[in-house]
Amino acid sequence: MKYANRMNHMAASEIREILKVTEQEQVISFAGGLPAPEMFPVEGFLTASEIVLKKSGHQALQYSATEGFEPLRIQIADRMNQKLQSQVTKDEVLIVNGAQQALDMSGKLFLNKGDTLICESPTYLGAINAFNAYECQYRSVSTDNEGICLRHLQEALDEQPDTKLIYVIPDFQNPTGRRWSIKRREEFMDLVSSYDIPVIEDNPYGEIAFDNKVFPSLKKWDVNKQVITLGTFSKIFCPGLRIGWIAAPQEILNQYILLKQSADLHTSNLSQRQISKYLDLFDIEVHIKELIRVYKCRRDIAVSAIQKSFPTQVRYTFPEGGLFLWVELPEPLSSRQLFEACIKEDVAFVPGDAFYPNGEKKNAFRLNFSNASEKQLQEGISRIGNIIYQFLETYIKQ
Amino acid sequence: MKYANRMNHMAASEIREILKVTEQEQVISFAGGLPAPEMFPVEGFLTASEIVLKKSGHQALQYSATEGFEPLRIQIADRMNQKLQSQVTKDEVLIVNGAQQALDMSGKLFLNKGDTLICESPTYLGAINAFNAYECQYRSVSTDNEGICLRHLQEALDEQPDTKLIYVIPDFQNPTGRRWSIKRREEFMDLVSSYDIPVIEDNPYGEIAFDNKVFPSLKKWDVNKQVITLGTFSKIFCPGLRIGWIAAPQEILNQYILLKQSADLHTSNLSQRQISKYLDLFDIEVHIKELIRVYKCRRDIAVSAIQKSFPTQVRYTFPEGGLFLWVELPEPLSSRQLFEACIKEDVAFVPGDAFYPNGEKKNAFRLNFSNASEKQLQEGISRIGNIIYQFLETYIKQ
Repeated sequence: MKYANRMNHMAASEIREILKVTEQEQVISFAGGLPAPEMFPVEGFLTASEIVLKKSGHQALQYSATEGFEPLRIQIADRMNQKLQSQVTKDEVLIVNGAQQALDMSGKLFLNKGDTLICESPTYLGAINAFNAYECQYRSVSTDNEGICLRHLQEALDEQPDTKLIYVIPDFQNPTGRRWSIKRREEFMDLVSSYDIPVIEDNPYGEIAFDNKVFPSLKKWDVNKQVITLGTFSKIFCPGLRIGWIAAPQEILNQYILLKQSADLHTSNLSQRQISKYLDLFDIEVHIKELIRVYKCRRDIAVSAIQKSFPTQVRYTFPEGGLFLWVELPEPLSSRQLFEACIKEDVAFVPGDAFYPNGEKKNAFRLNFSNASEKQLQEGISRIGNIIYQFLETYIKQ
Repeated sequence: MKYANRMNHMAASEIREILKVTEQEQVISFAGGLPAPEMFPVEGFLTASEIVLKKSGHQALQYSATEGFEPLRIQIADRMNQKLQSQVTKDEVLIVNGAQQALDMSGKLFLNKGDTLICESPTYLGAINAFNAYECQYRSVSTDNEGICLRHLQEALDEQPDTKLIYVIPDFQNPTGRRWSIKRREEFMDLVSSYDIPVIEDNPYGEIAFDNKVFPSLKKWDVNKQVITLGTFSKIFCPGLRIGWIAAPQEILNQYILLKQSADLHTSNLSQRQISKYLDLFDIEVHIKELIRVYKCRRDIAVSAIQKSFPTQVRYTFPEGGLFLWVELPEPLSSRQLFEACIKEDVAFVPGDAFYPNGEKKNAFRLNFSNASEKQLQEGISRIGNIIYQFLETYIKQ
């Protein structure tokens, strides 16, 4: 049986194996990117769901338009414009199966084999997985606390003027939790507007801002209509329904629609109507505020535990939103070796090398704080801290 | 903005445009492949849905395994083994977003640019759309009333021994409605088993057999583990949820799982649990029997109307199941010109050239009979008949 060549790039499913190990009951896992299930608005969703099935069950269970359920497209455009300061119309919104499908379709739409894609270093591993299928080259650009480094971005663009795609996560980035400053966003758009290169802005976390300040989308400064913003209900509502969206200029969206049709005809009609009805009946902003309260509290617990349990040589981010923080061990400690030792002590995270498409760094790891109790955060982080101390001692002795 | 080269193969969305025209209220449309919405078991689904959300809402709305919801995978394997005489285990089943996603993933898994894919002539246009994204070549093999022509298949394999994929629809094929005989299935498997080429068996309609005889899957004779069977709940239950599956030998399925993870992580957890619960609570076979009764009746009405309204030179299939019948006009009449004339009279179908990847035939069209009332079938087919008579007259005069 001969597979397509692209499968050579898909072989490594290490993370899948890691997540399987961490599924064991006794393991305290900070590995997944899971929202807190106890926060899902099940009651409200049940109400919305019953109304949809009782009032329009036959329509909701039938095939529907590839673009998505029109009322939901309107709701998404309105929310984006209100919260992210964009000016999107419903005709610029395509409903997809979570932002992951939007990533896959973006690779499919833009990338030939060997094409260059510019991304942040580190970047989201799910995006790397999606783009790998299209056999691209990655040019990683370093980031600092304000966002992507523009000097390095300029260097990358000078070296690779035929870059096909720029992929960035300005809001509480997975994996680092960092948010680009508004100034950096403006300067970034100023720079890229000189190039005819599409920019994918992946924004699953922007609304989960612990300071209640949602920053503008890059679309605010999109004079040349090159920004494609990806969104999802997975983090602000629930991920199990797989409802995300692509907001792109009309001409580009038409191409995505063609791909969506051949990929799976359309996203679940029922799920789209259920979410739309929920948004009609309930104030999702109230729900998001409550999420922010809980996740902020967990962030604080995680950071306190790190301060208490980790050696001072360990650096970490202090995210103002989202689900993750990022830890850097003193070099040359390996986070993968640390992972191996931690899993024996029933505590897990994702080793950081998975987030570097060219494997630049070995000493960092991603820690999810949204799906763990106070006790789990304290106990798990304390265990990791102990093992880091042991690693440091062993290293010093060598 | 530069798109990937594959988009050159995706440009033609004629069918999309056709279906848009046919959405107008006054049009009698036999164009879509839509099941009858009045048949959807909305009440039962609502019951199942409420139980899932009340008993396990928090789990159902969370991320879940890429492979799919285990109880549903077991139910699908069991149903396949009972009805299609296969021997599939749950570990050989992957849940996907309708069979369309299975087609897209099959192209992605097997096809490099320029690779040859063997298919029936005509074949399903949605499959052509999906495979086009992988820039393959099509080698069409003719079919007769027993199924794919084995002599022509042998010729194709002799000419193209490096064929990468064979794609067939043995059961009530979309578009012709034809079913392969059991003997032809056996002979086909006997022939292909000499080649290390995967066979995609697309089976959305097999259970909708008007004679209540469900024929065995090609898997029954799959000695070399090369058959990949695609299934879906779209036609036997409802399409709006987008729940389909891939049943493949373990090694191949593992590759599909990798692709599924990068494509959209997993299929809607909630929808999978809803269908699984419905299958627990209700006897879907009773529902399918009722579907068969209704669709068989509509097939009979359609065929009677054709006998009454179409010139005798027009040939058509008499499908023993499924949703479609296939009409061939006397050459050189063009079904696309007929379509243009019909749409002015507010009646629609899909012109047949869309079902030939290499555009072999221009004189056929597909007629869907599952989603129209008795009155619509009679009135619509009568209108088409009148226009065919006019076309014939004009042609004779020339």
